[in-house]
Amino acid sequence: MADTNVSPVMHDAEHYILEVQHRERWAAEDKDIDTRLEALRKEHGGAPNIIHIMWDDTAFGDIGIPALAAIRGFETPNLDRMRDEGIMFTRLYSENACTPSRAAVITGRHPVRTGMGIVDWPLGFGGLRGDEVTTAEVLSGEGYATAFYSKWHLGDIEESWPHFHGFDEAFFLPYNQVSSIWNPVGDVANIAPGSAHMRKDNVHELDEHGLRPDGMVMVIDGKKSEYSREWGAPDVETYSKVDAESEQRMMAFIDKNAADEKPFFVSYWPNMLGFIPSQEPKATLNAGGLAESLKRLDGFIGELMDKLTELGIAENTLLVCMADNGPMIHNPPSLLGMIDTIFRGGKGDFLEGGVRVPGFAWWPGTIAPGQFVNDIVHEVDLFTTFARVGGGTGNIPTDRVIDGVDQTSMLFNGDGYSRRDYVFIYSGDQLGATVKGRYKRHWITEGQDTGTSPVFFDLITDPRESMAQLVPLIWSSGQFDRMLARHLLWKERYPDHEKGRGVPFTGIENARPETLAIGDTLEQLRKELPFDPLEFIGFTMPDEFRASLRTDGVD
Amino acid sequence: MADTNVSPVMHDAEHYILEVQHRERWAAEDKDIDTRLEALRKEHGGAPNIIHIMWDDTAFGDIGIPALAAIRGFETPNLDRMRDEGIMFTRLYSENACTPSRAAVITGRHPVRTGMGIVDWPLGFGGLRGDEVTTAEVLSGEGYATAFYSKWHLGDIEESWPHFHGFDEAFFLPYNQVSSIWNPVGDVANIAPGSAHMRKDNVHELDEHGLRPDGMVMVIDGKKSEYSREWGAPDVETYSKVDAESEQRMMAFIDKNAADEKPFFVSYWPNMLGFIPSQEPKATLNAGGLAESLKRLDGFIGELMDKLTELGIAENTLLVCMADNGPMIHNPPSLLGMIDTIFRGGKGDFLEGGVRVPGFAWWPGTIAPGQFVNDIVHEVDLFTTFARVGGGTGNIPTDRVIDGVDQTSMLFNGDGYSRRDYVFIYSGDQLGATVKGRYKRHWITEGQDTGTSPVFFDLITDPRESMAQLVPLIWSSGQFDRMLARHLLWKERYPDHEKGRGVPFTGIENARPETLAIGDTLEQLRKELPFDPLEFIGFTMPDEFRASLRTDGVD
Repeated sequence: MADTNVSPVMHDAEHYILEVQHRERWAAEDKDIDTRLEALRKEHGGAPNIIHIMWDDTAFGDIGIPALAAIRGFETPNLDRMRDEGIMFTRLYSENACTPSRAAVITGRHPVRTGMGIVDWPLGFGGLRGDEVTTAEVLSGEGYATAFYSKWHLGDIEESWPHFHGFDEAFFLPYNQVSSIWNPVGDVANIAPGSAHMRKDNVHELDEHGLRPDGMVMVIDGKKSEYSREWGAPDVETYSKVDAESEQRMMAFIDKNAADEKPFFVSYWPNMLGFIPSQEPKATLNAGGLAESLKRLDGFIGELMDKLTELGIAENTLLVCMADNGPMIHNPPSLLGMIDTIFRGGKGDFLEGGVRVPGFAWWPGTIAPGQFVNDIVHEVDLFTTFARVGGGTGNIPTDRVIDGVDQTSMLFNGDGYSRRDYVFIYSGDQLGATVKGRYKRHWITEGQDTGTSPVFFDLITDPRESMAQLVPLIWSSGQFDRMLARHLLWKERYPDHEKGRGVPFTGIENARPETLAIGDTLEQLRKELPFDPLEFIGFTMPDEFRASLRTDGVD
Repeated sequence: MADTNVSPVMHDAEHYILEVQHRERWAAEDKDIDTRLEALRKEHGGAPNIIHIMWDDTAFGDIGIPALAAIRGFETPNLDRMRDEGIMFTRLYSENACTPSRAAVITGRHPVRTGMGIVDWPLGFGGLRGDEVTTAEVLSGEGYATAFYSKWHLGDIEESWPHFHGFDEAFFLPYNQVSSIWNPVGDVANIAPGSAHMRKDNVHELDEHGLRPDGMVMVIDGKKSEYSREWGAPDVETYSKVDAESEQRMMAFIDKNAADEKPFFVSYWPNMLGFIPSQEPKATLNAGGLAESLKRLDGFIGELMDKLTELGIAENTLLVCMADNGPMIHNPPSLLGMIDTIFRGGKGDFLEGGVRVPGFAWWPGTIAPGQFVNDIVHEVDLFTTFARVGGGTGNIPTDRVIDGVDQTSMLFNGDGYSRRDYVFIYSGDQLGATVKGRYKRHWITEGQDTGTSPVFFDLITDPRESMAQLVPLIWSSGQFDRMLARHLLWKERYPDHEKGRGVPFTGIENARPETLAIGDTLEQLRKELPFDPLEFIGFTMPDEFRASLRTDGVD
């Protein structure tokens, strides 16, 4: 297997099956891509800028399809413009929930490998491990200026934060949106009554700490090697300001680096302003929190494209916009107006509806306009592709499996140039399904917790996975078994990691007393308890309880 | 209510609620439409030609949405061209199965009123009543040449046939596609084993007639006031020729009338060549019977548009293409590759998936190009609209309720100009649901046969009708109750008819002995049985058995 033509990046086993078959064609394409990238560098005086925008919980079909926009009662003209001027993906796969998806796209690894397969909650006492390598680290190594804005959702420990992972600037939420309403202020307890338990006047609740993380920090303003500071309070008012602040900082960052002629990488994963309860007049006929948020975000994306054009850097900037996972159809979503539109299932599912997301790529002059790419692409591929585009493939660590493959040829050459025809779909740390070409095999059977009766679907004639097929399963069963065996063999050779663990919110300059108390309390408890509370932090849930983690629903 | 401004066509009660509110605007639009129609007549020397193409069992979303075409593995470039050059409807409602849909579109009346609400099977001993009035009769009265081709599916009695209902030429199937395989030849019994019972060598079957309609006629070639002839045999070979023969006749008919400068009306409701088992190499990646049929039909629609353009009559021809109902997802459809794509449900359901169909309208120079019409339009509206366009509104009978409303303003002026914001959705002869604006109230609760717990949906935030809503139901319950009351009041005043009944296949010049035997056998049985077998023909199924008729599935 190990041969001089094999890429130094260590891929999952399946990739080598394809590499052996397509080595010569790919080598020819790569040579051409190198020439074109080099020409671009000469023309623009530096490496291409890369901007990645990724938002929550949107069904494929809700964006970029005008007939559906009419039916769903909201429009996204600027994302439609990205489609008309670039690529609209029709088989872009994500992980099935926020934390796993974010971990995947920024490390190029399925989150089961990094211990990030399950949604991270306050207080999680953990997050992305310090030794995982992100796109920001890979591109920083090539001289990129890097910035992260808004919903990180990859952990509450310092080592997991973006400015400890290669981002020069980081203005971010360590958790998800819920932290804004689950706060001691109780400012929206009338519509989210459960959040009232943050009050301390309930005599029946004896535990001061367990369910009341009142030292929780919602927004952190960080600078690499310089500082971490809490920004605002954990309340609805602060929440409502995060995206506008992020966008202002992002535009300033772009202006500055364009002026300095320095290549930049920006990840903006918005907080979705419409997700919090508000009395504002609605701007869409749909009026749900998702539609309202997307309309707002779409406006910003239009401003961003205009700015890149005005600055004269549009032709040297790759912009990728996408959702992080399917709609939150489990755990009552009606307030947000989320619904599966074309594919069955939503957030937390390994059905297509959970993981097949809307996505667009725009790079005027390099990506040809008006394309549909119906190739299979997975969000982990953005890690490897951004590395290649930025000249940083050599900075990718070679001691671990990288699930992402280099899709630069697909960007440059369009539909039919993907370097994968398969994808492994996890739900938490369980392998839910495997897709190969038009076929999908479920390893977990819905309604059952064990995979004794795998079901099999043809995604072309049955995109909603509603009619299990026997005949093609007979035909392809051996192939799927071998894919599984190879995948598991590779996992045996390169075992999954646990996530990072530790005391949350250390190192914050302006930490509040109740934030500092989290660590102090742990220290105190360690002295007084008949066990070490930090052992609980490393606690791994036994298999028989894991099914409950599969469909997380709330981001 | 009766006032000189009220249209002489008798509408359902609900229409008058809107007419009272919009009388002045509509009158102004109508005046403008009259002027424009008159100018067109002057320009082209005659009334506009009208072509209606309607095919089977296609989910909204399967056609006209490029991203979905990629996902579903088949393309329809000519229907896409209709979309780009005309209107794509996003809220076009049909009835929920073949016979009801065909009866509705050709009479302008919900089929519950004409006794045609339930799919017509061989041998049905019945069909569309002779006293129902079709579009062909309305337009014949204005000097149109009229022709019908392929799948009529409106009955086996003479009075129900197209050349007895105003069509000058009729080349048609009285039943659906199944008659081609359910034949005494047994030519595909190996893949449709049930059809083997048409053989007479099973000693356990005592009844020679009941389950073996071997005198059944599959294709009839008819000419108004001249003849009816059987065409070919009821077998797969004849089936495979019907659409090609239809298209050849249709093109000749168009050529002739264009040369004669005579306005024409053509209904072509194809037989869908791909629905029968075939060993032909497949032309689409999808390869299902539906996709293969649509690809073939799409090619013909392209040829048709080209011909109209070449003949110089495109600007004087209204072309409407649509599906008759949703996909056949009940009654195993996997061979045909039918699946609900965006809306939940399929053929036979009162869910949106059963009745919200793809549709396009094209009339260069009159219909503005590249429009989505998101207004509610129902197929019954084509009856009234075609009448108006052809100057035949005065030929519409005024002694019965016409459910169709005149949508000429929507064709001329586009989205927002529909004259309905409601629709009543039947399933068989039961009212399944009522839609008003964005809301839909189910009168029959799924899984229950009585409407004791109506459920309520917001079709904008929940197009798949998957999350019942309480709050808007509270708000609008009275309105929906009143709509129901008005609708039922009108039905009490103008009761529903039974369908036409009689002996099938009379008057066929070249009738086979076994076809003639159907009537002879009935006469003989009448003499020998202790009851009149023709009383069974008039038999109406009691209510408690009717639920079994609701989801017919097979067309």
